[in-house]
Amino acid sequence: MLKRDLVNAVSDKIDGHLKKDISQAIDIILESITEALAEDRRVEIRGFGSLCVRMRKSRSTKNPRTSKMMHIPARKTVHFTMSKSIKDPLVKNDTENDE
Amino acid sequence: MLKRDLVNAVSDKIDGHLKKDISQAIDIILESITEALAEDRRVEIRGFGSLCVRMRKSRSTKNPRTSKMMHIPARKTVHFTMSKSIKDPLVKNDTENDE
Repeated sequence: MLKRDLVNAVSDKIDGHLKKDISQAIDIILESITEALAEDRRVEIRGFGSLCVRMRKSRSTKNPRTSKMMHIPARKTVHFTMSKSIKDPLVKNDTENDE
Repeated sequence: MLKRDLVNAVSDKIDGHLKKDISQAIDIILESITEALAEDRRVEIRGFGSLCVRMRKSRSTKNPRTSKMMHIPARKTVHFTMSKSIKDPLVKNDTENDE
């Protein structure tokens, strides 16, 4: 699923808006989220999930090719936590596959 | 940052759309993403990141209260991978803090 599929989904369900405007609205939404995360603010969308910046610890690992130990410094990463309304359909599909 | 902040950001930057419509558009976008994930489809938004369903392995852990070992079954979870345009401002802020 790509951005254009989201634009189409909105344009199919709400009349009277140009696809160009919908696409621009999605860009503004994504820019706002990116800005919030860059400022270490948590983004929480009820009924969907939340995005927050987490620190990943520094760690040492072996380069499999050279067998040399290398150090990976601590770094920031974006973590997504899904809310119950996403989790339920996932778990439901999962249980159906098990049976 | 909450959904209403996203609605306001869009409404401040594009004229001629009701907040009600913008809010509905955001709901449609989130529903479409949820549906795609429930069907195990990857959602990829260029310049932002991607969401995909990953399987978390089953694991055994000790209940810290009862000290009893308990088994946590394998389960699906949604993983967010950020694209370079989100990563760069995060890393930039990080390096500034270090100096």
